This record gives sequence, structure tokens and C-alpha cells, in this order.
Amino acid sequence: MSKKWVYLYEDVDEAEKLVGGNWDNVKALLGGKGANLAEMWRIGVPVPPGFTVTTEACNAYLAAGEKFPEGMWEQELAAMKALEEKTGKKFGDPKNPLLVSCRSGAKFSMPGMMDTVLNIGMNDETAAGMVELTGDERFVYDAYRRLIQMFGSVVLGIPDEPFEEALDELKRKRGVKSDTELTAADWKELTETFKQIVKREIRRDFPQDPYEQLRLATEAVFKSWNGKRAVDYRNATGIPHNLGTAVNIVTMVFGNMGWDSGTGVAFTRNPATGEKKLYGDYLLNAQGEDVVAGIRNTKPIAELEKEMPETYRQFLDICTKLERHYKDMQDVEFTIERGKLWMLQTRDGKRTAKAAVKIAVDMANEGLITKEQAVMRVKPSDVDTLMHPQFDPEVKKQAVLEGRLLAKGVNASPGAAVGMVAFDADLAEQWGKAGKPVIMVRPFTKPDDVHGMIAARGILTSEGGATSHAAVVARQFGKPCVVGASDLTIDLERRQMSVNGLIVKEGEYISIDGATGEAFLGEIPTITPRFEEQTELLTLLSWADEFRKLQVWANADYPKDALRARAYGAQGIGLCRTEHMFFEPERLPIVQRMILAKTEEERQKALDELLPFQRSDFEGIFKAMDGLPVIIRLIDPPLHEFMPSERQLLEEIIEMRVKGITEGLAEKEALLAAIESMHESNPMMGLRGIRLSIVMPGIVKMQVRAIFEAACNMAKQGVVVKPEVMIPLAGHVNELKVIQPQLEAVAQEVMREKGITVEYKFGTMIEVPRAAVTADEIASVAQFFSFGTNDLTQMTFGYSRDDAEARFLLQYVEMGILPKNPFQTIDRAGVGELMKMAVQKGRATRPDLEVGICGEHGGDPESIEFCHLINQNYVSCSPFRVPVARLAAAHAAIKHKQ
Amino acid sequence: MSKKWVYLYEDVDEAEKLVGGNWDNVKALLGGKGANLAEMWRIGVPVPPGFTVTTEACNAYLAAGEKFPEGMWEQELAAMKALEEKTGKKFGDPKNPLLVSCRSGAKFSMPGMMDTVLNIGMNDETAAGMVELTGDERFVYDAYRRLIQMFGSVVLGIPDEPFEEALDELKRKRGVKSDTELTAADWKELTETFKQIVKREIRRDFPQDPYEQLRLATEAVFKSWNGKRAVDYRNATGIPHNLGTAVNIVTMVFGNMGWDSGTGVAFTRNPATGEKKLYGDYLLNAQGEDVVAGIRNTKPIAELEKEMPETYRQFLDICTKLERHYKDMQDVEFTIERGKLWMLQTRDGKRTAKAAVKIAVDMANEGLITKEQAVMRVKPSDVDTLMHPQFDPEVKKQAVLEGRLLAKGVNASPGAAVGMVAFDADLAEQWGKAGKPVIMVRPFTKPDDVHGMIAARGILTSEGGATSHAAVVARQFGKPCVVGASDLTIDLERRQMSVNGLIVKEGEYISIDGATGEAFLGEIPTITPRFEEQTELLTLLSWADEFRKLQVWANADYPKDALRARAYGAQGIGLCRTEHMFFEPERLPIVQRMILAKTEEERQKALDELLPFQRSDFEGIFKAMDGLPVIIRLIDPPLHEFMPSERQLLEEIIEMRVKGITEGLAEKEALLAAIESMHESNPMMGLRGIRLSIVMPGIVKMQVRAIFEAACNMAKQGVVVKPEVMIPLAGHVNELKVIQPQLEAVAQEVMREKGITVEYKFGTMIEVPRAAVTADEIASVAQFFSFGTNDLTQMTFGYSRDDAEARFLLQYVEMGILPKNPFQTIDRAGVGELMKMAVQKGRATRPDLEVGICGEHGGDPESIEFCHLINQNYVSCSPFRVPVARLAAAHAAIKHKQ
Repeated sequence: MSKKWVYLYEDVDEAEKLVGGNWDNVKALLGGKGANLAEMWRIGVPVPPGFTVTTEACNAYLAAGEKFPEGMWEQELAAMKALEEKTGKKFGDPKNPLLVSCRSGAKFSMPGMMDTVLNIGMNDETAAGMVELTGDERFVYDAYRRLIQMFGSVVLGIPDEPFEEALDELKRKRGVKSDTELTAADWKELTETFKQIVKREIRRDFPQDPYEQLRLATEAVFKSWNGKRAVDYRNATGIPHNLGTAVNIVTMVFGNMGWDSGTGVAFTRNPATGEKKLYGDYLLNAQGEDVVAGIRNTKPIAELEKEMPETYRQFLDICTKLERHYKDMQDVEFTIERGKLWMLQTRDGKRTAKAAVKIAVDMANEGLITKEQAVMRVKPSDVDTLMHPQFDPEVKKQAVLEGRLLAKGVNASPGAAVGMVAFDADLAEQWGKAGKPVIMVRPFTKPDDVHGMIAARGILTSEGGATSHAAVVARQFGKPCVVGASDLTIDLERRQMSVNGLIVKEGEYISIDGATGEAFLGEIPTITPRFEEQTELLTLLSWADEFRKLQVWANADYPKDALRARAYGAQGIGLCRTEHMFFEPERLPIVQRMILAKTEEERQKALDELLPFQRSDFEGIFKAMDGLPVIIRLIDPPLHEFMPSERQLLEEIIEMRVKGITEGLAEKEALLAAIESMHESNPMMGLRGIRLSIVMPGIVKMQVRAIFEAACNMAKQGVVVKPEVMIPLAGHVNELKVIQPQLEAVAQEVMREKGITVEYKFGTMIEVPRAAVTADEIASVAQFFSFGTNDLTQMTFGYSRDDAEARFLLQYVEMGILPKNPFQTIDRAGVGELMKMAVQKGRATRPDLEVGICGEHGGDPESIEFCHLINQNYVSCSPFRVPVARLAAAHAAIKHKQ
Repeated sequence: MSKKWVYLYEDVDEAEKLVGGNWDNVKALLGGKGANLAEMWRIGVPVPPGFTVTTEACNAYLAAGEKFPEGMWEQELAAMKALEEKTGKKFGDPKNPLLVSCRSGAKFSMPGMMDTVLNIGMNDETAAGMVELTGDERFVYDAYRRLIQMFGSVVLGIPDEPFEEALDELKRKRGVKSDTELTAADWKELTETFKQIVKREIRRDFPQDPYEQLRLATEAVFKSWNGKRAVDYRNATGIPHNLGTAVNIVTMVFGNMGWDSGTGVAFTRNPATGEKKLYGDYLLNAQGEDVVAGIRNTKPIAELEKEMPETYRQFLDICTKLERHYKDMQDVEFTIERGKLWMLQTRDGKRTAKAAVKIAVDMANEGLITKEQAVMRVKPSDVDTLMHPQFDPEVKKQAVLEGRLLAKGVNASPGAAVGMVAFDADLAEQWGKAGKPVIMVRPFTKPDDVHGMIAARGILTSEGGATSHAAVVARQFGKPCVVGASDLTIDLERRQMSVNGLIVKEGEYISIDGATGEAFLGEIPTITPRFEEQTELLTLLSWADEFRKLQVWANADYPKDALRARAYGAQGIGLCRTEHMFFEPERLPIVQRMILAKTEEERQKALDELLPFQRSDFEGIFKAMDGLPVIIRLIDPPLHEFMPSERQLLEEIIEMRVKGITEGLAEKEALLAAIESMHESNPMMGLRGIRLSIVMPGIVKMQVRAIFEAACNMAKQGVVVKPEVMIPLAGHVNELKVIQPQLEAVAQEVMREKGITVEYKFGTMIEVPRAAVTADEIASVAQFFSFGTNDLTQMTFGYSRDDAEARFLLQYVEMGILPKNPFQTIDRAGVGELMKMAVQKGRATRPDLEVGICGEHGGDPESIEFCHLINQNYVSCSPFRVPVARLAAAHAAIKHKQ
């Protein structure tokens, strides 16, 4: 007996048993859509009879060089028989023809990425029979011509254009504007024209045999798994390429059989805000594509209650049932055929970040899910989105007064975005990759446009609703999006759009507010959302805090950043970069004097001038972090970074020389010589960090004095200070053995002077591979480690980050040589291996060694998971990412429980 | 009972038993000198009675804050009693006084570095008694004043100058030139003067109590262990600081008791050439210091045969006995007192590289030692010395004809050296550290001068013989040295020397030939010694080959280098750098055209032009290495290295702009823009190696084509070719997975075209830490590894070598932060750990993985030992170091046998 390739709904128990009772595996086998159709059937939701050809069949088909696996077609035919029995109709029978749809359905939803053919089973004979049966010739030939067009496009590879042109031509001939004005005869004529197009394009007749239609459509869905759009989408979303798609064959139901019919899509809660209220659109007397494509203007789902109160109530009940069953907000499709409600699909609904948080918290409060589940429901990137800037409402008001409000559309995906208008996806991608801010503007978007949407800061369309392609994709990628801004007239040929006589050309700046649906001319400044007002988010994060093991600290150089970090929940400062303070205008000249000093006295004098500045910075930070640890990193960059540009100076000097100008030349030449003498061929690996401290200890001694003077001063005021002094770039324990005692001596000296003692630590960054390899030795001196994963990644890979990203790194990621950019997500196999080694070796020497991370990775969820796995004490990231990190740390702890 | 601190010769068995029968431990306890005195006594060689205070006593004395350990002084007094019994004399007895010397003697010989006091036991009374006893007042007061001077200087810390001045003053007063012209009364008067000097300088009388003399002298020797000279010497030679020195108290014998007395030093074989013939100097009627200090002109030892045939024969027998006993060439000191021969010291003699090889081979051939011992007797650095350039004899002849031969002296240490004259050690050190070539020129050298000698390329003195301080130290450090060039008049005040009216000022260049004893004005070019004529070296290396496990390959970019490497014993080419070929004048313009190409066609055209050049280079190398593997590395450096200087171009352009010159400006600007677009902030970690190959595969495809065309062409001529293609800088296995198949396809294509198949491998360098950490993955694609330890060291430490060495690395080594420069000797704890990991992980994936090293470390003996320990297959180094590596590999294998 051959393998089971085809599952009727009633076979779902068998499928479930086969895969070990795991619903995820059922979805892998039957696809999400197929599994959910069967599941709906199982829990008593009305679904049109149908069956599913498995993803395994798809994979077998593709692996065999596009041949159905043994027995599959026979099983599909048998399933058709079962449908005939259930519906009382017969496939290809002119008297009472069974029509079916053929849709793809993979394990993970890939909206619009793969193909669908409707109305399979129609041919000249069945069409005629259906006219007799329904008495509605117009409906029948509309359906028939749809089959020919879809089949032509999806199965036979004929482009849409000739079909669209023929329809337009006919409308022109009849002098009408909309499809609905065409008569039954017109549709019948168009059907003939479509058949001729097929014949002309592929030199074959449109297949009249329903079974041939079914077979070819099944194959087309299988093949669509490897279509370019699908592959691109999977690459963009990280869906594996080896899953395959299932094929769902479902009895057709029609929403366009008159005004007692209709079709719609809905979310069981608002996918933009999370509000617990049905949200969606429908159209009466229409096919499903009309709603989804966003071409016809749909009605909000609430209106259905007035138009069809009974059906609406039934629909509401089903939605509640589905949500309770799946324990998540559902995205459903339905059709009403002559008053009878059919559910065509249900799946977990995509949602905005805001909605994700609200729904998770609400559902936990409703008792539908646990706190732990609620925490896992929200992605760290959702929290990130909620931390994003939004437009300053005052400036926005002003812009409205100035007449800069271009249009108002549907608020499809929240967030504020400012960028240059690009009218196609390729240009948007090109500009986006070049680092330009782009708003992609289109009448509507199609799956082909996704690459441009990913590259854009935001998306604006003149057509479509909240469930249009543009809206769905934008929400998924967290891009601000406004759709259906119908006042806009977009002229793709002239690369411009107009509204009320105002013309916006490609490349001009606009601003869109995805939360309100507004689009503005020009750039509107953004402000930071008020974290403390996001009640549900605060609740969710407090739950996350209950689960996580990692502490979350923040990188902050200034008291104001420290305060913000603390407000966001930071439990310490993991990195305070002292050299940033050197760059401030009033200080830089002193720093330069210190660097250029010819005598030790001169240098000390400059350092003495710098000390009060540093001390007061530190005082502010200690105060802000009262009671919490503050890691202060001593000077790290090479000194030439504080000097004027060598190139500019050189140009000035050459010019002066050529022109014979002598005044001031000698001075400039001396300065140039000094800067040149600091030149290094690879400054990242030159005289900086601890090396600089050893060669020129004056600077760090001043810094340590400033730190401890500040700490003692604050301690005297009753602030609980916990300074931790971090010496960067150590690669050999002897470096620490040389400098650390000198610095501790300064600390002791200051505390004696001040007559007060504070708790402190001295530690180092692990950012040189050698430090990781010899961490056991390093830990004999250092009291804490902090991974500087930016440099550690640079040196472990041998990549200079700037050079690499400009020249080959992004190409490496695109080519799949590197799965991710290792500067964004820790490379576990390489850099991570060294980190693991460092933690193990370090703790072998010093069991209570405090280990953290202060590189950019400290705010990246996947990297945070890794930090959890290697038993770090904390991660430290930018203040804005603290909430993200809190959630990510909770995810890691829950995921790797026990 | 207190510990045994003092050993008479006859206690040597007890000492040996105490330390477990290990002679090295006996030397550690009694010092080399003391142990050998006892040993000579044990085998029946005449040594003056004496005893040794142990190194343990010294350490205990220093550790206790300069206090003798309990019981030590009592034991020393008891030993003195024993001496009195043996000699029949009595310490401090005017009638028959016992005199003793007090000398330091550490485990390892530190010639002249520590202090000695002779004639202890003399005072006013014993002097008078000795005059009665010997009837030789002149001898007695010469000896007494010597004691006062030495004691004053060594024990009481009085500088030599006042004593020397008093002597000079006396000679002036007497109108004589040499010491021998002074009368007994003069010496007596001088003795009184010396006593007054002591009183004046330290406000105390010279101690008349012999036991106080002995006690203070013993303490002085202990303290001298931590004197600056001794510490410096130990730092320079790597002797540990915790060994301590023993004190040897030996009955005085006098070589200055008339013309039947004498003293000398000798080597049992020639320490410069290794010839099996006594070599040394002596003086009749003289004290030992007169010979060693090189102040009086000595006679060659051979003349003793004529002057004292019986004594000479006795001496020859003793030398033979000692050599047979110690199984090594001995460096001995002797004194003849009134016809009676006494041996004062024996130790393994220091020798030149040439002598080391010859003595080792001869002794093995004589059956005195085994081949294995012979191999271990020669240091790899000795072999290196023998590979050093020597002067071109033709040019030297010419220089003689031109009158540039300044002087001829004693050929004290072979080798050719060219440098600027520096007349003192401090200047020599200063210039040497600044990278200038220096020849240090002095009348004679003292222990204080060693730091300058180490920094100099060579040493030239106008005084002293083959065993003078300058000669001994120069030989030890492998520095070319000419001593006793008495024609030179050195004027230290005017910083110049003159010879026959010719004046050479400080800073002028001279050339010295340590093998012939010649000194020339100006720079004389050097040539390479003829390896194949160094018979003993060839023999020794052939023995080394029998023991070593590691293969030795060579780095060679050109056929002539490959030929040389093979002649030196290379078993393969471990690194052929293809890009060096790009820099040749006729090729560079094509390379630049290739880099700047705007179209793929242009680029391919330039590559097609380069191909024949590369092919013919490879043909030559394959031919030279017939039958042996040749690893060819594909292009490694970033492309901008092949472009003209950005800075120069910029200066030209600014100048043209300012002057308003337009002709050719646009072109230059375009070129500058192109070069600027290649600019990287850390080029070492930018677009180079495999990254460049992936981004721009045309170049490496051309190179692989050239390699395989060359290989096939040669194979057709009957040459056995074994090409191994090395892809540099891989850090992720996917990089190899992308490029290696493309290159193998080219190889296959060429072999198909040529109709012949050759064996080949594709592999990679391990030079990025990540490659080492993920070596298991890398080895799934790479068929061989070659450690690029230069880059691996750079990235593991995070050091840019040039920047680091210019700014902090040498300081790190001086400060002891790094034990060695990690670019010279592999850092085992860091870089080495990664290498070990790479070998283990790589072989776990591919058990037959070929692993080698092609970084500079491949020629460093200590690094070679490490490569042996981690089971590499081969080391590859520059051709000139191949013989060094052969010996070092043998040492590693023998040292870590079993």
C-alpha cells in the first residue's frame, strides 16, 4: 500500500496520531491552512468540504523532478469522490457540477506568496449546466472567465496583461467603467476571448477536462514553493526552504451569488491596537480576492451586523470559539453563500507590536493564557517597535495648519517614518541600501514589492484597506504604513503624486504616521514615546522580570542617559565611556594640549584641568544610579582620534606652501608632524586601551582619581555608590598586573584624603581573543569581565567592521556565507565559543566572577539568549533597548527552563 | 645540628648524594666553579686546597636581610682549620701565613660579572713574615697592595681611580713606565699610600684581622649576586635570578713568584675554529688577572712547551683528562708556582658557532659522545650564525688595495659586521635601539660595557687577546669581534681613532671581519657563506635529520629561492607568495590596469596578460622542487597595496590646483578617487585574502589556471609536481565552500585541456582566530592547514605588528609584561592554545590533515619545539633558516623523546 498523501478533514485524528500528537507537526504535514480547516471541522465550525495533499507529497514531487509520488493522484481522485458524496454534486457533471478551489498552504503563513486557482471544474459544459441550475448566467461566466485567467496565469504561465487588456477593451467598447456594469452576455463573450488568449499564448486549448485542471493546478501549487517570490519571502523571514507546501482542495462557495451572499476577512481583535473587538472588512456579492486585493472599497465588519444580523451573530460566536480554541487572536476568512456562512480559513493573526502586547496582557488577564505564555507571545522586536520615536504632536499640529497634511488613509501599521518618496520597490531598495531614508509610495503593493518594503522606512498606498497586502506585510516587518489614502493621485510614469493640485516628486521628503494614517509633506521631527504611559507594556515587562535570570544593565555616558536607563528598568550601568566626555567643545582643546604636551609638567597641568569635568560627570551618574553598580571604562581610543583631521591640515599646508604663505605655516607643520607621528596603519589594533594606559599612565590615573573623588563626594551625601573601574583591551594578565595596582593605589589615596571608604571593583573587558583564551590568568587579577563583543568579533573574524560592512560583509550575508551579520548577532560557533571559554576559565579561577557584555550585542535578543546560556550575570545595552533586553532575557530563561 | 653550608673538596661525594647524584644539582649547590674544583680534586688533578660556601648559604644570607645563616661562619672557620692542616700554614700567622682567595661561582658561568678578592690573610704582620719567608719583598708588597686595592673596591666600595692614580703618580715620580720597573720599596710605599686611601675614603682602617677580611669578602661575594652588572647579565642571558652564588675559598698560589712561576688560561680545543689543539695564553711571573684583563701582551700557550717542557706536558695530560672526564671542550685556568702546576678552574668552554659544530662532530667521531649528544651540543643559533653573510673576498681585496684596511687584530669571534663607530657602550646601545648598525670600539671592554656590546653589530678593541673580556663576551653573543688591534690609537675624549694618520670619527662606517681579525674603513658588502662546503655542519645536520619528526619546508617566491631552499635541505615549499610576482616592474602596470578596470572585459584582458608571467614563475618553482610538495598561496594583500601612494598623488593634485595647472589633472583626480575608494581604516582586517577572492574571483581563477597550466606543462616534461593551492584568511567554512569548488573546477578544466592529471590539494591558512576555533568545520573542506602565525598573533593579541613594535611592544618586553616578542616566538598560552585547538579539531574531522606553519615563527627554535609538541607535520621558514630549523626540530624530538 502506498503512503498516505491525501487527508480528508475527518482524517485529522489519524494525521495527529501519525506525527505523535504534536499540532506543530500536523501543521508541518498538512500546512497551516489545511490543518486549521480540519481543526475547524473537528470543533464544529462550518467549513466547505475539502481535503489536503500533504507537504510530504510536495517535497516528493519536487525531489523526483516534478513527478507525483506513487499513489498520490489515485488518493486525490478518491478524495474527490468523497467530496462528491458529501456535497451531492459531481465533478464535471453539467447537471450539478462540483467546483473546487486549489490553494497552497505551508507550515508557516506566507501571505500571497504562493498560488491559488479557484472554480476548478468549470468548462463549457458545466458552465452551461450551472446557468440552468442557478439561472444566473452573469455569475457563471464571470466565474468561468476567472478560472481561465487564474489558470492561465498560475498554471499555464500566461501573464495577466492580455486578460486585463481584453477586459478593459470590452469595458471601453461597452462604454462602462466598472465590472458590475457588464452584462451576462459580456462575460460570456469575454470567456470566449480568454479562451482564445490561452490558445494564442500557449498554442493549446484551455483544458476542458476538470481532472486535467485539478492535476495541473495541484502541480502548479507544488511548483510555486520554489517560485522566486516564495524563495525571497522565505529568505527575508527565515523560513526554511525544505518544508514544502500542502495543497488544499476545497469545495467552492460563492460570495458573489447575489446580495444575500458576501465575503470578508476579519481579525478577532484589532490587529493594530489589540482592542478586544472584531476588526475586518467585507463586501456583499463579491469574491474573496476583491477584499484582500484592496481593489474595491470594503465595508467595516461592524456594518454586517445591520446588513445580516443573524449571520453576524453566528460569525461572532465562531470567532469567539476559534479564539478560545486557539488561545490567540485569529485572522479568519469567510464567505456567505446565499445566506449560509462558511469559514474558509483561520490562523493566528499578525498584529502590530502594540496589539501584540495588549492582546497578550489581556488574554492573560482573561485567564485564557498564563503569564509565561503572555511573555512568550510578544517578540522582543515588538518592544523595540514600541520604543521607537513618534512624531512630535505639536509640530504635527503646526504642519496641519501649514497645509502640509497631504492625505489621510488607513492606519495600517503604527510608527512614524520620514523619508524620500520612491515610487517603485527597486528604487526603494537601491536607496535604502545606500543608507537613504525612503518612503515607498505605490497605488497598492504586490508580493513582488516586498524587497522594496523591507528597505523602506515606511509604506504609503492610495488604495486598499487594513487587510490589504501592503498593510499585512508592513505590520509583519514593523514598518509604519498608511494605506488607502485615496486622495493621492499617483502618476508612476511621471514619477510624482498629486493631491489638491500639490505635486510631490520622487525624491522629495514626506512623513507618514502609521498610527493615525496621516501623510505629510516634508520632514516632521519625532519624539520618544512615553514609556511610563504604556501600561500593558509595563505589565508585560514586570511579568518578564519574574522569569529572567540575566540582569539587564545599560550603557550610558551621561547622567541623563543613566536616568533614562534606570526608568526603563536598568539594574546597573555596564559601560560608561569616559572618552566621550573628552570630545565636548570646552574640553577638547585641553585634551589636545594634554596629548601634545612636551613635558610631563605640561601634561599634568592639562590633566589637572580635565579632572573637575570628569568628576562632575561621574557625580551625576553615581547619583542617578544610587544603590546600583556603575562600570566606568577608562580611556580606550587611540589619542589621534582627539586630534584635528590630518588630511585637511595637509591640504592647508600644501596650499600655503605652494602659495608661499609663511604666516602660521610652521605651527601648522608642527601640528601635522605631531599628528603624523601618531599615525598607525591599523589603529584599531594599535596604541589604545590598556596599552595607552601603560605607556602613558597619567590619563588613567587622573580618571581614577576623578571616579573616586566623585564616588566619595556622593557617598558623603548619602548616595550608595558602587563604582567598578573597567580597564579595556587587556590581552595578557601582566598588563593588568602592571597598571591595576597603580590605579588601586590612586583609589586608596583618594579615599584616605576624603576620609570615607566605598565598595569598588577593578575589572577588564574581554575583547581580544587572547584575553578569552587566557581568561583563567586574567581573572586572577580582574574582579569582573565585560565582553566587548564589537572588538572581539572584529578580532576573532579578522574584520575591521567599517571596512568589512562597506566591502564584503553584507555580501557575505546575502550569499549565505554568514547566516547573520556577526556585529548584530553573536557568532556562536566562533566568537561565542571564545566567550564560553572565557566564562568557564574565568570562573575556574574566581568562582564569583561577575560577567557581562557591553558590546552592541547586549541588546540583540538572539545574543541575549546566548548570554543566558553561558551563564553571564548581566547584559548591558543602550537605554532604549533595556525593555527589549528584559523581555529577551525572559524568553531565554523560559525557553531553556530546567 | 645546623645545616651543612660549607663543603671541602672531599665532601663532594656527600654533596652529590644529598642532591640525588645529579651533577647539575651539585653545580646548583656548589656553583660551577666550586663543583669543578672538587671534581678535579676527585679525579686527581692538582688543585690548591680549598672549600666552598654553598649557594644556599648565599640565598639564606640575602633572604635574611644580609645575615649569615646559623652555623655557616662556624663551618667556614672549621674549613679554614682544615686548610691550615693541609697546607701546614696558618691563617694570620706571620711565620708561615696561609693566604686564600675568595671568589664567586654560580651554577652558570657569568664571566667577570661578580667579584673576587685575592691574597686574603695579608696584613702588616704577615707581610713582614712573608718577606722573611720568601726573601722577596717586592713580591710581598705587590701582593699586599693588590689585596688592599681589591678589598677596597670589592668589599669596601671604594672606586679604583684613587688607587690607580696613586700608582701612576708613583711611576711618574720614579720616572718609570711599567709596573715591573718599580722596586720593593716602591711597592711598600704604595701599600702605605693605599692604606691611607682606604682610611680617607671610608674613615676606617683597612682591617688587619684576617678573619674579618674573610668574613667581609664572603659577604661581598654574596651581595655581588644582586649587583647591577650581575642582574643585567642574567637578564641578557636568561639565567634565573634565584640561584644565588657560591663562595670559593682557595689557598693562594702565586704565578708571580719569579720566572719559574706563571699563569695562564687555555681552551682544550680552539674555541674559534674547533680545531683539536690547545689554545690559550700565559704570562710568566704574573698574576692571573694580568692575562684575563688583556692588559699585558700574553704569549700563546704553545710557547710554554719551549719555556717549560715538563710542565707543558703535564698540563697537556691534565687537559686531555679533563676533556675525557667532562666529555666537552674545557676552559681552564692554571698557575705555576715555582715550577709546580696548579689548576685553578675548569669549565665547559664557550665557543664560536663554527667551533661548536666542529667540536661536536669531532667528539662524536672520536667516540667521546653519541650522535644524539653531538646534535644537542650545537645550538640552533650556532647554525644561524654559520648561515650569516661574510664579506665578499673580492671587494675586501679591493679595499686593501685602496688602503682601507685600518688594522689587523686578533680574530676573536667570527662573522662580518658593518656599522657606525660608537666609542662607548651607552651610545652603542642608544644607536642600536634606534635601529642603527653600530660597531662598538673601545681600548678594551669591561663587564659594564656588555649592554653596548649586545646592541652592537660587532666589537673592535685595540688591546687584549683571544681570551680577553671583549672576546669572551662577543663569542657568547655571536657578535663578530676583533681584539688587540694595537695599531689603532683610540682617543675617547675627541671621539675618534687614528691609524697611520688616518682619522675615523664617531659615527663613520667601518667593517670588521671577526674571522680574519681585519678592520676596514667604510662599508664592505657581504656574501653568503657556502653551505655545501661546511662539511662538519652538513654532517651534524644529517645526524639531526635522523632524530627529528617534523619536516622542514621553506618559504620561497622565486625559483632561485626554491633551489636554495632545496640545497639547504628543504622538503617542500610551504609558502609561495604569488603577489610578490605582481610587484615586478613589467607586471605592476598590468596589475593596476586590472584593478582599475571599469568592465569585466577590461579586467579579464589584464588578467589574461598576467597569466603567462605567473605560469612561468610556477614552472620554475615546480621544476626546482621536482618530487616535493609546493604550496602556492593565492593573492592575499588588499588591492590598494598595488597602487601608487595616495599621499604623493594628493600633494601633486593640490599643487596643480593651486597653480591652476589643468593638463593631466582630471586623470590624476580620477586615479586619486579610485585609490581613495579603496581606502580602509584597518586594511589588515579588510578586503583581502579569501574575501577578495569571493568578491572578485577573476584574479584567483587566473592564478589557479596559471598554477595548473604550469603543473601540467612540467608534468609532461617528466617533473613530478605536487601543487597545493592555499587560500588565505578563511574564517568561516562557508567562505571555502563558495570559492574552493570554483577553483577546483578551473583546475579540472586545465587538466582536461592539457590531457594530463596531477595530484593536488586545496587548503587554507589558519590565521584568523575564528578559523582556529572552528577548525573542525574548516577541515571539512580544506585538505591542509598552514598556520599564518604572523596574522594569527596580530589578531589573537589585537596587535597591528608595525604599530605595536613602534609604540609599545618592545617596551612590553622590556617591562616583562611579555616574556618575549610574540612575533618572534610563539606565545604558547594564547596563540599556541588556538593552534593546538586547530590541530585537534582539524584532525578530528580529517585524521590525515596536513598541518604546517608558514609564519616567521617557522624558523624560530622555541616555536619549532612548540610545533613539534602539537604534532604538526612540518615547519616552513625562509631558506636561510632551513638548516637552523632542521637542528631545532631534532632538538625538540630528542628533548621530548618517548
